Amino acid sequence: MSNLRIGQGVDFHRLVEGRDLWLGGVLVPHTKGALGHSDADVLLHAICDALLGAACLGDIGTHFPDTSQEFKNIDSKILLQRTMELLEQHVYTVINIDCMLCLQAPKIKPYIPLMQEVIAHILKVEKDAISVKATTAEGLGFVGREEGVMAYATVLIEKNKLLF
Amino acid sequence: MSNLRIGQGVDFHRLVEGRDLWLGGVLVPHTKGALGHSDADVLLHAICDALLGAACLGDIGTHFPDTSQEFKNIDSKILLQRTMELLEQHVYTVINIDCMLCLQAPKIKPYIPLMQEVIAHILKVEKDAISVKATTAEGLGFVGREEGVMAYATVLIEKNKLLF
Amino acid sequence: MSNLRIGQGVDFHRLVEGRDLWLGGVLVPHTKGALGHSDADVLLHAICDALLGAACLGDIGTHFPDTSQEFKNIDSKILLQRTMELLEQHVYTVINIDCMLCLQAPKIKPYIPLMQEVIAHILKVEKDAISVKATTAEGLGFVGREEGVMAYATVLIEKNKLLF
Repeated sequence: MSNLRIGQGVDFHRLVEGRDLWLGGVLVPHTKGALGHSDADVLLHAICDALLGAACLGDIGTHFPDTSQEFKNIDSKILLQRTMELLEQHVYTVINIDCMLCLQAPKIKPYIPLMQEVIAHILKVEKDAISVKATTAEGLGFVGREEGVMAYATVLIEKNKLLF
Repeated sequence: MSNLRIGQGVDFHRLVEGRDLWLGGVLVPHTKGALGHSDADVLLHAICDALLGAACLGDIGTHFPDTSQEFKNIDSKILLQRTMELLEQHVYTVINIDCMLCLQAPKIKPYIPLMQEVIAHILKVEKDAISVKATTAEGLGFVGREEGVMAYATVLIEKNKLLF
Repeated sequence: MSNLRIGQGVDFHRLVEGRDLWLGGVLVPHTKGALGHSDADVLLHAICDALLGAACLGDIGTHFPDTSQEFKNIDSKILLQRTMELLEQHVYTVINIDCMLCLQAPKIKPYIPLMQEVIAHILKVEKDAISVKATTAEGLGFVGREEGVMAYATVLIEKNKLLF
């Protein structure tokens, strides 16, 4: 049987005034930020969930509950780092990740190369294993009305054969 | 060429009073249930669609039309069983499945191990090949307003080489 | 390491009167059409993004900006063709694609075989490597209110080993 596994993640956060907008581990200047218990980085959360799902290790709510003081306002890069440690304990390596950020504003294209670098560094892969795409929702729904931001992530991981 | 194939499914159901809430083959106690022609199990429907899509065998509407009396109020576990039979006829086995349930309430975490068991049994895989994750929509959109429930599924399947 | 890569795409378009409805490269008769800079083919756009994402080559907005006169009202089959050329330059071949169209009306089932043929021809794969599924949103959200149409695509591609 193949030693590949796939996973997917979807995350939502409300946009409000008076919060920072962290996306893909990068602080994006904007008039609104994402509301949440942690730094509310919708992209890193979708990636964490996709990685945990591929390895069948629960989800972000299992490992980093939003009822815990430990994770209050926490930098989601730490959550991604801990997710990667869990995968390493289960002898998985990351093949590639492809993500989509859905938000009406601001334009995040200039920040994508830095997001890729940050994520690739934490996951110990080359930058070209991490794809981050972005789209508006064409004014439709809660993303279109700028009430919230969404992210989707798909991952391919591999169980290390040498250590079976 | 690789004998792996990927598939994805997305499903939506309206939440209404006076219906049962079936999720992942499990009856979840709640004040509302999902509306549909069958038992409206949004998670099993997304998985059926992902499996059919990966094998390029149409979709749930092709095989189990909601205009047919045969499928009126049917247990979606039967639809998943029939989907698996179709895949077996085409010599596919399931590598792994990762899903996300999006619903505002109730908390479904306690029911996830049983969902995994039910799905794994029907698909003839180990329980750790079936990942079920859950998230709220942070109060956003129709999921956030508790008007409906959504599910996403991603699957990896393999064409059996021995029987080519 | 595996030479497989996965990708995903999500696209949104507003439905308005006075526009054509192009879906999967096929003109679908309807009272409304999709609004966009190009022909606004939501399914082909999701596929382009999934392919570009899997190969880590940016996204549809990077290669075919909606601010360019070159792409004004362009047939999205040309965008898919150019996307495939980019993948070929990077020595990728397509293993399979699975998509989901989310729209409340009209019924698109009769058009699916032609969509598969069109997409398979451009991507140089067999028709059974291209799965197109469809669902309504059960009246929920902007898809349910017929304000817009959405598409999701998942792809599996392979880097050609011989040419490494």
